[in-house]
Amino acid sequence: MPRPLILHPDRLFPADETVRAIARRLYAEISGLPIISPHGHTDPAWFAGNAPFENPTALLLQPDHYLYRMLYSQGISLDQLGILRADGSAAQVNPREAWRVFAKHYHLFRGTPSRLWLDHVFAELFGLQTQLGEETADAYYDLIDAALTGDEFRPRALFERFNIEVLTTTESPLDQLLQHRALRDSGWNGRVLTAFRPDPVVDPEYEGFLENLETLGDLTGEDTGTWNGYLMALRRRRQYFKELGATSTDHGHPTAATADLSRNDCETLFDKALRGKCKGSKAELFRGQLLTEMAAMSLDDGLVMQLHPGPMRNHNLELYQRFGRDRGADMPRRTDFVNALKPLLDRFGNESDLALILFSLDESSYARELAPLAGHYPCLKLGPAWWFHDSPEGMRRYRQQLTETAGFYNTVGFNDDTRAFLSIPARHDVARRMDCGYLAELVADHRLEEDEAAELAVELAYTLAKKAYRL
Amino acid sequence: MPRPLILHPDRLFPADETVRAIARRLYAEISGLPIISPHGHTDPAWFAGNAPFENPTALLLQPDHYLYRMLYSQGISLDQLGILRADGSAAQVNPREAWRVFAKHYHLFRGTPSRLWLDHVFAELFGLQTQLGEETADAYYDLIDAALTGDEFRPRALFERFNIEVLTTTESPLDQLLQHRALRDSGWNGRVLTAFRPDPVVDPEYEGFLENLETLGDLTGEDTGTWNGYLMALRRRRQYFKELGATSTDHGHPTAATADLSRNDCETLFDKALRGKCKGSKAELFRGQLLTEMAAMSLDDGLVMQLHPGPMRNHNLELYQRFGRDRGADMPRRTDFVNALKPLLDRFGNESDLALILFSLDESSYARELAPLAGHYPCLKLGPAWWFHDSPEGMRRYRQQLTETAGFYNTVGFNDDTRAFLSIPARHDVARRMDCGYLAELVADHRLEEDEAAELAVELAYTLAKKAYRL
Amino acid sequence: MPRPLILHPDRLFPADETVRAIARRLYAEISGLPIISPHGHTDPAWFAGNAPFENPTALLLQPDHYLYRMLYSQGISLDQLGILRADGSAAQVNPREAWRVFAKHYHLFRGTPSRLWLDHVFAELFGLQTQLGEETADAYYDLIDAALTGDEFRPRALFERFNIEVLTTTESPLDQLLQHRALRDSGWNGRVLTAFRPDPVVDPEYEGFLENLETLGDLTGEDTGTWNGYLMALRRRRQYFKELGATSTDHGHPTAATADLSRNDCETLFDKALRGKCKGSKAELFRGQLLTEMAAMSLDDGLVMQLHPGPMRNHNLELYQRFGRDRGADMPRRTDFVNALKPLLDRFGNESDLALILFSLDESSYARELAPLAGHYPCLKLGPAWWFHDSPEGMRRYRQQLTETAGFYNTVGFNDDTRAFLSIPARHDVARRMDCGYLAELVADHRLEEDEAAELAVELAYTLAKKAYRL
Repeated sequence: MPRPLILHPDRLFPADETVRAIARRLYAEISGLPIISPHGHTDPAWFAGNAPFENPTALLLQPDHYLYRMLYSQGISLDQLGILRADGSAAQVNPREAWRVFAKHYHLFRGTPSRLWLDHVFAELFGLQTQLGEETADAYYDLIDAALTGDEFRPRALFERFNIEVLTTTESPLDQLLQHRALRDSGWNGRVLTAFRPDPVVDPEYEGFLENLETLGDLTGEDTGTWNGYLMALRRRRQYFKELGATSTDHGHPTAATADLSRNDCETLFDKALRGKCKGSKAELFRGQLLTEMAAMSLDDGLVMQLHPGPMRNHNLELYQRFGRDRGADMPRRTDFVNALKPLLDRFGNESDLALILFSLDESSYARELAPLAGHYPCLKLGPAWWFHDSPEGMRRYRQQLTETAGFYNTVGFNDDTRAFLSIPARHDVARRMDCGYLAELVADHRLEEDEAAELAVELAYTLAKKAYRL
Repeated sequence: MPRPLILHPDRLFPADETVRAIARRLYAEISGLPIISPHGHTDPAWFAGNAPFENPTALLLQPDHYLYRMLYSQGISLDQLGILRADGSAAQVNPREAWRVFAKHYHLFRGTPSRLWLDHVFAELFGLQTQLGEETADAYYDLIDAALTGDEFRPRALFERFNIEVLTTTESPLDQLLQHRALRDSGWNGRVLTAFRPDPVVDPEYEGFLENLETLGDLTGEDTGTWNGYLMALRRRRQYFKELGATSTDHGHPTAATADLSRNDCETLFDKALRGKCKGSKAELFRGQLLTEMAAMSLDDGLVMQLHPGPMRNHNLELYQRFGRDRGADMPRRTDFVNALKPLLDRFGNESDLALILFSLDESSYARELAPLAGHYPCLKLGPAWWFHDSPEGMRRYRQQLTETAGFYNTVGFNDDTRAFLSIPARHDVARRMDCGYLAELVADHRLEEDEAAELAVELAYTLAKKAYRL
Repeated sequence: MPRPLILHPDRLFPADETVRAIARRLYAEISGLPIISPHGHTDPAWFAGNAPFENPTALLLQPDHYLYRMLYSQGISLDQLGILRADGSAAQVNPREAWRVFAKHYHLFRGTPSRLWLDHVFAELFGLQTQLGEETADAYYDLIDAALTGDEFRPRALFERFNIEVLTTTESPLDQLLQHRALRDSGWNGRVLTAFRPDPVVDPEYEGFLENLETLGDLTGEDTGTWNGYLMALRRRRQYFKELGATSTDHGHPTAATADLSRNDCETLFDKALRGKCKGSKAELFRGQLLTEMAAMSLDDGLVMQLHPGPMRNHNLELYQRFGRDRGADMPRRTDFVNALKPLLDRFGNESDLALILFSLDESSYARELAPLAGHYPCLKLGPAWWFHDSPEGMRRYRQQLTETAGFYNTVGFNDDTRAFLSIPARHDVARRMDCGYLAELVADHRLEEDEAAELAVELAYTLAKKAYRL
């Protein structure tokens, strides 16, 4: 018999009755606050076009590499799930069949945040009252599939229902931002912004780097065959993004390395890159120099920088060759910040007008490096628990390991960082609940007064994100 | 006055009454499940010969480096305890005197798992009702010593009393497995298996490596002076182990490095090894290549691989020279998995038929590397909290840091990994209690339904180990 | 309206009522024990001269880099706070104005230990009953300023009121210890000791190293231009410190590297240092060799060694140039102990008469390296949670990650390690509360009997520090 699906009102709150009661009071005051989503990967075309979502599998399973990585780890092939291949093809899979495979293995997600997010979506959005599983797979599929035809499940309606005040997507400098322009011109008043993610044109090891530089030149009319023209082209694209609402840039590097080379050395390195000879440690140096260049530009144009370092992308060679990027096979490694950021910080660390938000997949850096750095440098702030750590225990460790040295005010609230649009309210709800639980513990052991905690709950859920991202 | 010795029925359960009640219910359903011990270091001769154990000191103290490492740290020499020296001699120590030294310093173990395991043995097995200490040393000694003469304290009787369904020992490929053959032929129906631990013949830095290769050649009739013959010899020994019940291999390397060299490079490296010139990074490469070779063989013969990387063995030079290996002086270091395993994973990572179980002494790798790896690669599973981390807090960190990314089903239940036979039930009991406590917390904050937790409790205590080790 | 300032009697105890009750009972027995402060950075001149403290800002804000690092991270300049510059000047800042800036930003310290310490000082010492903030800034300033003129707020009176049994300061070998001599000769019976911190004369990269060697020669009459004379001079200064009460040395190195070179290699390296050519890895080797030399001397003279490795000092280049050392810009890095300490341990690791107390800013080393090392080597002990980790959560992680492998008896109690004299009772109180909370948890889940926990509470609060530091 299927299990009931219950979103308990006290979920994720500490078990102790006294603490739980405090958490409940704190949460009651903030659960209704609008959602600020300053960093993520939803598709602006959804909101520009406002077409209905296709079917449960295409909406909930196929875009979510958190889900199929787990299924894959237990021997389920990506073809069984109909995941798009690198060559643009996909196995002919009936979406209902793929959904059944997923449903049958739903127990694999016990104890994971995916389970929390999905159950939230199933219960809150679709009103489902039994757990997903082999027996309920078809009922789920039919109910969700039917719901998606209704107007209230179109992207803009959901955006409004979710009480999203602002949602940021992430685009390449080579993107013409047609969807964002269409959105701006559409008259709809949902606030969907872009963010400038220059990896394809600042990482000499990125696929198609040289062609990308050419395109960058075409888009800007600058000569990207010279260091100077290249920087100018980047400035122009930043400006273009800013005009379409961007308040931030985002940098997804394998490490946090930065550099501060002489102009001469920059030109030499750039020449190497142009000749396709900038690999390994040279590429690392190039990317590091570009971070420093981006910081310089940020001081001019006011865009907030985000640095997401740490993962080895596409760790699974065969999978990458068959299915391409972002298939759940990126693997975090140890990440040094103290040495790596020094060149950039030596130049701009004391600038209060610069905002550089750091993320980490290496939790051992939280108390050791990130909190001391952010608790000192005016330009640094700490992004929330990221990716694998965007989870109840991940958030608990984040607060416990960072707060005592960095405080609350050097953090920037929550990012959902997702391409799974429907999960956004669930993710923010998890963060709000965990933060209220953490604050409740501080109150219960008399480290904070409850009215201070109430103030902080609002900051963590809403205000800090708006301020940090200059929204 | 001696303190009472009480094994409280609620020990190790979370303190909160609500959570504790859930933990109690979960535990009640699994506390009686048979013990699966798929990896450890007990002596098969005990079960083959079924002779009575000698005396309390020889049984409980002298084989347990967890105990004398702590005593040694507080200035008690190994000779005072009668520990066997590297040359085979031992200080003339009256076992009762050694026991008294141990008893007098029993307070040193406060807060350690050794204390939990020993108290469990003292209370459950020997019915002792006061704590061990200076005053009770002799009473303990006399009572245990007398008990050991009884038939119900012989190895096979204890094996049955402990409700062990299967127990795996660990042997070198050079071992003829005479005890295991004797066991098989004895008619006793206790299931004691061997596991294939090839360190002495795959690590060019192992003591006597070259002689070991010769012996390996003699045992198999293969020419271990060629790369091909060497691999063939390993295959043959694996086959021999398998015939005597082995379902797994075990690899105790200083790091997790793997390699995937061309046949030519393998032969060159092997030649170096044969000439005793394979040291340092070359030896690392050799060991790494052998892991990949072992994976290839596992795909053929179905043996499950275990990788136990991380410790610097024999860190204390003087102690090693006087007392030899396994004297409590192995020291863990940082361990990288993401880079280290890539060569092996590039070749076999996507094979669902391969099973590679990873252990770590570097907890910082749990959330950062191991959970993302095991939560993606079909061939990877995660072994339980190991060695220094086989402890209540170690287990808690293990679940809290791994579950959200790897789930429960990419873990393999519990290993006791011990040479202290009497402690086996205590160790499994600690693991079961801690897992029930963890699950109870998930239930209490509504991340799991209680019936799901009950299912999982059985998996963690029993089913996953059987499945993962193909028992 | 200002918030009430309440030091709740149960603060920092676990929230669960059962556990809290145990913690309360344990704490009641130890809260009144005298303070042993075996390592810190207070100024001996305070106690020698016994002059009144100047004003609230000079007393509480300006010496405390924990405070202004946080203020600085939020854009408040050190000049606004009147912090002394590297050239000896300071911005002309009215101390009351600086205090107002601090008060206005007091919310930044929510969730940090500084908040706990300061509130303790404000409430306990000055009897303040409302929280510090913009509105209460002046009232605070006036009240504290007035109090400081009273005899009961002079250093010696506070020392006695704080119930300090012994307080250790830290001095350079070049210090003539005039204050300590004055203290000894003063007839006051407060016990204030020095500790020998040789960084300025054992680190070739220390500012003024060569001049320092000359001074060292002058002070001792030894020829510090030879390796032999240099070592002899160090021995003499140690002797001088010992005569003035020192029982310990302290070593603040960037890493834990040690070395054990031949005499010849030492002389060559020393020559290089004399010629100013000992930089980078050579300097590292020099410092490492000196640690081993210090261990040899400790075996002779009985001084306890402390090793504080890990931080990159003066990470903020510009700030360092303008404001000098110890301005809140030291950043911890990953620290290896297992490899780094091996040379020293190979030589002296088995000496029970040597005492080497290890500290770490890299918590990932706790369970992985420090606990296994200290749980084996007779010469090693573990210092308390240090610096950024001298905090409630830091202490909790310290006990949870070390105890199971190192036990309690390889730790050395608490160090306040502070230059903020008034915070000493608060810091010890936090440590005592957290330790009682930790012990209460062990009692609540039946890992310890309560009377054992009570014994341990006294050890952790008082006895272990006295014993470890040979006081």
